[in-house]
Amino acid sequence: MAKGERKRALRGRAGRMKGGRGSGATTGNVRIWGRHPVEAALKNPARQHSKLWATREGIATLDGELPEDFPIEYADPSDLGRMVAKDAPHQGLVLETAALEGAFINEVATGDPGRPVVILDQVTDPHNVGAILRSAAAFGAACIITQDRHAPPESGVVAKSASGALETVPWVRVVNLARALDELAEIGYWRIGMTGEAEASLAEAMPSGALAIVMGAEGEGMRHNIAAHCDAHARLPISSSIESLNVSNAAAIALYAAATRVME
Amino acid sequence: MAKGERKRALRGRAGRMKGGRGSGATTGNVRIWGRHPVEAALKNPARQHSKLWATREGIATLDGELPEDFPIEYADPSDLGRMVAKDAPHQGLVLETAALEGAFINEVATGDPGRPVVILDQVTDPHNVGAILRSAAAFGAACIITQDRHAPPESGVVAKSASGALETVPWVRVVNLARALDELAEIGYWRIGMTGEAEASLAEAMPSGALAIVMGAEGEGMRHNIAAHCDAHARLPISSSIESLNVSNAAAIALYAAATRVME
Repeated sequence: MAKGERKRALRGRAGRMKGGRGSGATTGNVRIWGRHPVEAALKNPARQHSKLWATREGIATLDGELPEDFPIEYADPSDLGRMVAKDAPHQGLVLETAALEGAFINEVATGDPGRPVVILDQVTDPHNVGAILRSAAAFGAACIITQDRHAPPESGVVAKSASGALETVPWVRVVNLARALDELAEIGYWRIGMTGEAEASLAEAMPSGALAIVMGAEGEGMRHNIAAHCDAHARLPISSSIESLNVSNAAAIALYAAATRVME
Repeated sequence: MAKGERKRALRGRAGRMKGGRGSGATTGNVRIWGRHPVEAALKNPARQHSKLWATREGIATLDGELPEDFPIEYADPSDLGRMVAKDAPHQGLVLETAALEGAFINEVATGDPGRPVVILDQVTDPHNVGAILRSAAAFGAACIITQDRHAPPESGVVAKSASGALETVPWVRVVNLARALDELAEIGYWRIGMTGEAEASLAEAMPSGALAIVMGAEGEGMRHNIAAHCDAHARLPISSSIESLNVSNAAAIALYAAATRVME
């Protein structure tokens, strides 16, 4: 399955001038690995690519054709293995690319009831943030919002767990999460904080309009000030034998509940 | 927070005779780390413990009191770090304990509509299996069922991701998954295969009685013969922009949908 005419072009930009304005949220380059994440990054016109290290087999798995002048260096799987996190499943593809510029709330959160917003308070595990991006893409979320100091940076681990969704779901990084929740309320979002102590179930608390789902960290839960900035709190109907769900699982359930509310 | 009278006893068994009968499914010892997994394992009377390596701080975090004669060896965090997977968050606790004996379908799957069964076809990632065990505990699943050759062994990674649920959710390991699906049908379970190609949504396909949720591996999906052993197929309402959800996220959604169906 070599590069063939039937393939769509991979619209990667390599070394061109940086477009748009810098948000200052994330700077520098990141290394992204694995077929889905690399393919999605190559197709993202907002990316500035430095170089792709790859095996010939890795290149052959890409859905799309790289531009003639794309900077590729062929390498052995073991060389690639040394470039990424230990035991990372690179699948023959390691891309060095500029970190994405952050999005702004008022650009991406338009108050569409069919496109919820996901706010993460102190969810620091990059696997969880990646998995939440993936579910956010699956259920058409408008964006995810994290607080700069309490969230992982963009990384290969986030990208791998997101399975391509890092490129398609806007990620808003803010300095002040409470202020962001104020902004969302002004736009018209009903902010539901998912907490185990809530009296209302998610089904009971679900509004009919635009929805912002606020998730706290596992164990610690969400901070008091963040909880106080929600319009309602809701719990998932889980057994008392277990403290909480994995945060990405809980977010997926909330997104599903929101999607089936709108669509059914 | 040292070992105090107010704490419940940790009912760990160390070095006693093995009770019950061996299922042959898993043998040997496993190393479990982290506060939740170790605490849950210590409280599981079915466990045969060999030894607990711990920091004094780690011991102090345990909810419960170890028996006087429990084999503990105090160690530095760095020593513990060398005993477990790289960068594993051991939280000062590493327990060596005998692997659990497998459960049998007819012992744990009683046809209770409030307790679904989760069948995993070729879900090999231990993080995913652990997260599914955690969600299974949260939503009162009767058991999970995997096929011996296409599932991870019991391990510290599974235990950590399960956050204690490895000790409470029966795990049935079978040689022939299609035969297991036959058995479930005989008991009265309606078997729903979760596949992206299904026409019915999960909500449409949901039965009112006992439910068996069949999940395939990400990417490859479930095998043809397993899909053929389902009574119905169902899809989650996800965007065409993304291939699939993370399998543990999809399982959590299916369990939530089953739980809210019964309870509301």
